[in-house]
Amino acid sequence: MSSRKSRGGRSARQAERSSAQVSAPAFITRKVPVYQCLSDELLELIEANADTLLEEIGIEFREDPGALELFREAGADIEGERVHFPRGLCRRLIQDTAPGQFTQHARNPARSVQIGGPHTVLVPAYGPPFVRDLDKGRRYATIEDFQNFVKLAYACPELHHSGGTVCEPVDLPVNKRHLDMVYSHIRYSDKAFMGSVTAPERAEDSVWMAKLVFGEEFVENNCVLINLINANSPLVFDSTMLGAARVYAQHNQATIISPFILAGAMSPVTVLGTCTQILAEALAGMAFTQLVRAGAPVVFGTFSSSISMQSGAPTFGTPEPSQVLYACAALARRLGVPFRSGGGLCASKLPDAQAAFESANTLQSAMLAGVNFMLHTAGWLEGGLVMSYEKFILDADQAGMIGRFLAGIDGSANAQALDAFREVGPGQHFLGCAHTQANFETAFYRSRIADNNSFEQWESEGALDTAQRANHIYKHLLDQYQAPAIDPGIDEALRAFMQQRKDAMPDASY
Amino acid sequence: MSSRKSRGGRSARQAERSSAQVSAPAFITRKVPVYQCLSDELLELIEANADTLLEEIGIEFREDPGALELFREAGADIEGERVHFPRGLCRRLIQDTAPGQFTQHARNPARSVQIGGPHTVLVPAYGPPFVRDLDKGRRYATIEDFQNFVKLAYACPELHHSGGTVCEPVDLPVNKRHLDMVYSHIRYSDKAFMGSVTAPERAEDSVWMAKLVFGEEFVENNCVLINLINANSPLVFDSTMLGAARVYAQHNQATIISPFILAGAMSPVTVLGTCTQILAEALAGMAFTQLVRAGAPVVFGTFSSSISMQSGAPTFGTPEPSQVLYACAALARRLGVPFRSGGGLCASKLPDAQAAFESANTLQSAMLAGVNFMLHTAGWLEGGLVMSYEKFILDADQAGMIGRFLAGIDGSANAQALDAFREVGPGQHFLGCAHTQANFETAFYRSRIADNNSFEQWESEGALDTAQRANHIYKHLLDQYQAPAIDPGIDEALRAFMQQRKDAMPDASY
Repeated sequence: MSSRKSRGGRSARQAERSSAQVSAPAFITRKVPVYQCLSDELLELIEANADTLLEEIGIEFREDPGALELFREAGADIEGERVHFPRGLCRRLIQDTAPGQFTQHARNPARSVQIGGPHTVLVPAYGPPFVRDLDKGRRYATIEDFQNFVKLAYACPELHHSGGTVCEPVDLPVNKRHLDMVYSHIRYSDKAFMGSVTAPERAEDSVWMAKLVFGEEFVENNCVLINLINANSPLVFDSTMLGAARVYAQHNQATIISPFILAGAMSPVTVLGTCTQILAEALAGMAFTQLVRAGAPVVFGTFSSSISMQSGAPTFGTPEPSQVLYACAALARRLGVPFRSGGGLCASKLPDAQAAFESANTLQSAMLAGVNFMLHTAGWLEGGLVMSYEKFILDADQAGMIGRFLAGIDGSANAQALDAFREVGPGQHFLGCAHTQANFETAFYRSRIADNNSFEQWESEGALDTAQRANHIYKHLLDQYQAPAIDPGIDEALRAFMQQRKDAMPDASY
Repeated sequence: MSSRKSRGGRSARQAERSSAQVSAPAFITRKVPVYQCLSDELLELIEANADTLLEEIGIEFREDPGALELFREAGADIEGERVHFPRGLCRRLIQDTAPGQFTQHARNPARSVQIGGPHTVLVPAYGPPFVRDLDKGRRYATIEDFQNFVKLAYACPELHHSGGTVCEPVDLPVNKRHLDMVYSHIRYSDKAFMGSVTAPERAEDSVWMAKLVFGEEFVENNCVLINLINANSPLVFDSTMLGAARVYAQHNQATIISPFILAGAMSPVTVLGTCTQILAEALAGMAFTQLVRAGAPVVFGTFSSSISMQSGAPTFGTPEPSQVLYACAALARRLGVPFRSGGGLCASKLPDAQAAFESANTLQSAMLAGVNFMLHTAGWLEGGLVMSYEKFILDADQAGMIGRFLAGIDGSANAQALDAFREVGPGQHFLGCAHTQANFETAFYRSRIADNNSFEQWESEGALDTAQRANHIYKHLLDQYQAPAIDPGIDEALRAFMQQRKDAMPDASY
């Protein structure tokens, strides 16, 4: 390394960077127990009540006769678009064929991620139509912003995944922007990423582009895309989401079946009632994917928050959604499928103390619940309306801490440190002792953003608050960014495919 | 209530306030499991290694021949001021006589707190020489600030305790300020509080003042003071702390034996090594209290953070101190004594995102670890150098969320909400349904500080950040504050005692 460094210049920096990147783990393997918030009795009660919902009230699968036919053949009772499930049917369909964990392949094999089991994959926020930074404030997101966040996620080894709609590039036509989004993930990162779900044909485009990168046969036999399928809660799946889910399952790609719940509006105002609904919806959606293609990877997802019962506004980081999260994680484990939830969720308009308290409360819960795929880990602001450049940096730092915590506690002789005590003795300090010298470089998590200096030093350096420091860091990361290499033939093929698809249809705003 | 209200004026407001205060629980009773981070094997290893430290290296009890004599009589081996403990001796001394939990009485019996077992008591920060608010910035604390924080803790039902040195009133002589501090806790609050530990005679003064409030016999038979005894880590107790601990134990008052650790400086740079040292120090200190008076209430305390191995500065909210906290809580449970740790710890100079992320990470860990006495829950800034008015409000809001989370998950028929599903059905919302109407007032935690409104509404209300909103709230609480009633004879006696003690000695700055 030092000889390369002395040569200086771009290639040296690139070598340095890629070496640093490769040394970071591609995902987390949890070495500590999960936190169990609910008793087995309460979990069994939720499962029984979810079966009651599925049987008695049922789930609507709207404008998708094919879905109804699949469920009829599997033994469900169909009334109009309403599917009533015999008790245990969905669970059996899932447990018979859905994998307990699977690999999502990245185009750089060193970045492929394990989803499920003791593994946790930390993923940027998804969906905001706005972006915000300290310099230009709040504004609609563009494809340039989108690419910036792909680059930032690539530059942060604490994040394991490039995500999906890291922000909505509203400067591009609705019916074509998915092409640029998928291309940006492939071109500006080499981490795994998510496909489009806004229409079945856009899901098909995503699969096609993946095939150009990974090869057709590889894609049909391996997961290279993971895709967010929201239930239309309560108790409804719509044809857009069903159509996208069908495309991905048919191609053996992963879906995350995610009830999207603001409790009190889209579910009852209680933790237990909300968990029951989430489980019922997730069971029905996951069963659908297994009927489309047995064995297609599928994740039990949930996004759940509560609302202010005064104003109806969504609230984040409060105790009840954490309880829901812990419960649903346990329900997913009992079912035997990977679980998605969590993230740096907050309602704050600014990357301030409210944002951080709310985000930390959800991040800690998701960490200890054993979430496998943690969407919205970084960047989320204002109830998900805004992707914040500064908050992204703050959250990525928390992601690093999550990785460190979940790596567990070393019980080795070196960690027991008995020799350090023998060397130092009462009333002395450990700073210079041999044990400290041998261990200090990796001893404690080093935050990229925290200022731990004295008041006087902090003041002399401009008395910057955390958001101001994060502003400098994100700009530095973008400034230092260097795109990962890509086969020019693949790049050419991707560009040609995009152009052909764009030329084939007029711009549309839906 | 409504008839009182209609009379208006001061007494009506007072009635309203005291009614609201009484309805809040005086402490938390945990209804969810604790989080177990370490295996029993690792905990046993720490216990065995702590016994090795106690036996082989020993603990120094400095300038306190009486302490050495007590340990000699109990069977320890004394070399100079170094005490070597036979394996298991400290544990046996503690387990034979120290209570597993106890009541600390408040002068308002409805505010008495249970310390130990499944209970959690949330307590303001302790010790900062500076205060800070948005209006006047950072400055030395005064007795007026001290009284303000006592009033704020009284006004926040989420906090269960008045604390101790909520800030250091540096405008008063060092040798007399403890009188004003203890008096302020008694006069401006009716919650339980902490005594002075800066000299044995100041501990005696604290006990005397408590006797004026509670009566002499009551104090000798009940805990009315809880007192923070820090070890002088590593492996040392000094005569000041031993002297104060002796006074309190003699009077049957509670002590918290707290190793104060910045890992890497005062302990080894590993989690396991740090836990081993904490356990050894806490065992030795707790055993001392039981030798002074068998059965005196004692708490296993720890304050543990790490340092930046680059600058030596203390860091907060990072993963390793959380692991230490979880481990020590488990060690205290195995020992069978109450546990103190945690709080809203941070290094940030401002009540900003860094402060909140760091604080939330420790608060969440302390919540799930089953901490019984959570010192530093509210107000802490800048590594404990600063008590922040705005941060106090933010942290108190988190304290409320901790109370809500630990209250557990309701499994009743109402909470299962099956009727709500039957009423609402697929695709409809729950906002107006009967179940929501019946439950919405208590359904979700209501934050006093979070702004969940739309961006537009937030902007129209001045686009305040969280600290600015907290600034308004703390001023409102101080403005609305009304002192709890006190028997005029007791107040007179306290004032006379203070005056007599102040007149008996010249001012001193140590």
